[in-house]
Amino acid sequence: MKKRINRLIRSVKKLSLDALLIGAPDNIEYLTGFQAPGGYLLVTPGKIIYFTHYVYFEQAKKNPLWEVILAQTDMFSAIAKKARASGIRRLGFEAKRLTFLEYKKIKEEITSRNIGFLKTDDVVERLREVKTPDELRCIRRAVQITEEALGYARELMDSAHYSEKTLALEIERFMKLKGDTRTAFDPIVASGAHAAYPHAQSGPDKVFSRKLVLIDLGARCCGYCADLTRVFFLGKMPNYHIKKIYNIVKAAQEKAISKIRAGVRACDIDSAARNYIEKKGLGKSFGHGLGHGVGLCVHELPYLSPHARGVLRENMVVTVEPAVYLPGKLGIRLESMVLVKNKGAEVIDGNFYWKYKTR
Amino acid sequence: MKKRINRLIRSVKKLSLDALLIGAPDNIEYLTGFQAPGGYLLVTPGKIIYFTHYVYFEQAKKNPLWEVILAQTDMFSAIAKKARASGIRRLGFEAKRLTFLEYKKIKEEITSRNIGFLKTDDVVERLREVKTPDELRCIRRAVQITEEALGYARELMDSAHYSEKTLALEIERFMKLKGDTRTAFDPIVASGAHAAYPHAQSGPDKVFSRKLVLIDLGARCCGYCADLTRVFFLGKMPNYHIKKIYNIVKAAQEKAISKIRAGVRACDIDSAARNYIEKKGLGKSFGHGLGHGVGLCVHELPYLSPHARGVLRENMVVTVEPAVYLPGKLGIRLESMVLVKNKGAEVIDGNFYWKYKTR
Repeated sequence: MKKRINRLIRSVKKLSLDALLIGAPDNIEYLTGFQAPGGYLLVTPGKIIYFTHYVYFEQAKKNPLWEVILAQTDMFSAIAKKARASGIRRLGFEAKRLTFLEYKKIKEEITSRNIGFLKTDDVVERLREVKTPDELRCIRRAVQITEEALGYARELMDSAHYSEKTLALEIERFMKLKGDTRTAFDPIVASGAHAAYPHAQSGPDKVFSRKLVLIDLGARCCGYCADLTRVFFLGKMPNYHIKKIYNIVKAAQEKAISKIRAGVRACDIDSAARNYIEKKGLGKSFGHGLGHGVGLCVHELPYLSPHARGVLRENMVVTVEPAVYLPGKLGIRLESMVLVKNKGAEVIDGNFYWKYKTR
Repeated sequence: MKKRINRLIRSVKKLSLDALLIGAPDNIEYLTGFQAPGGYLLVTPGKIIYFTHYVYFEQAKKNPLWEVILAQTDMFSAIAKKARASGIRRLGFEAKRLTFLEYKKIKEEITSRNIGFLKTDDVVERLREVKTPDELRCIRRAVQITEEALGYARELMDSAHYSEKTLALEIERFMKLKGDTRTAFDPIVASGAHAAYPHAQSGPDKVFSRKLVLIDLGARCCGYCADLTRVFFLGKMPNYHIKKIYNIVKAAQEKAISKIRAGVRACDIDSAARNYIEKKGLGKSFGHGLGHGVGLCVHELPYLSPHARGVLRENMVVTVEPAVYLPGKLGIRLESMVLVKNKGAEVIDGNFYWKYKTR
């Protein structure tokens, strides 16, 4: 954690700031290991100070990294007073994470003490893009649990006629027993035409045999997320049309993964898959980005999309999830997680698809 | 839903605005029944327009209430164009819910089209305070499921030595099977001294007999939350000291509930409980507010706290949750949900406590 804070302080200095005020819980967790909503972290070159409410105060006090200040209704003036006392003249804030009202109230307190309050973008988020060996261990474990949950889902679908909702609950529980008590997100179990909604809600529909079932799920381990999607075909072999689409999506994914290595532009990875799907005449059926970074948040920097700027760096972790959605008919999305290395891509999950199985 | 939108339009007009831009997903859900992140709702007296990404577009199109606009990177200019085309001159925004960056980008687009972009506070949130009969039915059902889950927890604790984490998972699953696939929040199961943290995380500790176990949990039904807390004593009777604290908290809760009726100031309900706990010499051990509104969000307006302004109105739903926390030793919090009526309070849950049970 010390290292992370030191790296952050270097970033802050590069921006000609004296300190950074952090309100985003995931950024606070990244820097200090402490996970709670509603607090603010003031990172200065000398020390770090955490402002929290009564509800989290006793837990926060146990963290040796910081000075903890108990604030209630006077949160914003407490921050400003401390900034003033620490000799801060230029304080940065997170433009994407502070609400307008927080910004306005803190700015009032801060500027009345002759301190500049300056907008920053993604300062901590950019540090989080490249994963350390410790972080990679957590991610690998989360991916492993997620794959086990997929195997469990296959067994369950084989043994009974589950509804989407109940199947989603069972695999969620499986992941929570093995990993963190939070999953990365609520599992999506979407059968048949439901799979045509990129973010379907699991409903009361039965996961019938012969139907296509899309499962998008992710466990967490020590806070770090996994995010995988698989498509199952139960009972009969899928028809020629569905198989063809499946293979297009699979090939698009392989094309993208084969391009991944440090130094490549993120938008070029996206276009490798997108161009292939377009060439097959299905360009309009793939309307979202190809992938995203995964870490303490299930969606974080870097993004793989047509508009993405920037270049992949070693030890970034990204999803690669091309898809084809045919509203009212079907949706096929295949999602793997990839570790960016200097020489190429390492697929973290087995990247194994149960294309179809007969009962 | 039409009624809610009409009420909102009346509020908007009272603020001398032509329209309101809503980004908070729970406010959008309240007004339209549609639940998805990342979209924006433009409510004008003539019609309502929803701006969403590709991922939710197909689902959004099914809602007959609105015009849906598919926006990707041009989200903010799409909103501004539509506002201009609708003849809006003064557009309100949600100061507590928009991030600073969203505010800045939308404002740029809006003001370049000669439209005023004006801060509002809690416009939809204030409509949500008073519940309709439909909403109350959902809340009552969520409370019922939550109470059943508490009974289930008692049976489980009786039948095996669960860890906090596993017990939390079992009751979570129970609530999800019976209610919505989302719970109101991750259940808190905190045994012994853990209960002294108001928001404890359920850990690997075994819920041993003779220990005090605090369970704070809430199911959802059709989006609406429940939020209840109970304290169990397993095995031996609790000692005199613990029983005394339990009874103080219980009496404080009863005092507060007996004061609740439409027309009473929210801060007076808080002080009814707080003064009693202070009189018993434990004032410093109760540091949070007495309660909060419950609806589509588990914490919403109105708040019962020393700083709360405003008066209770009929058909508000609030929690009443006095507590005593003794760090390193124990915590006792008792939480019930109360419906505010003109003549008094109706406790929605059975308000029944398993004070202690012997194996």
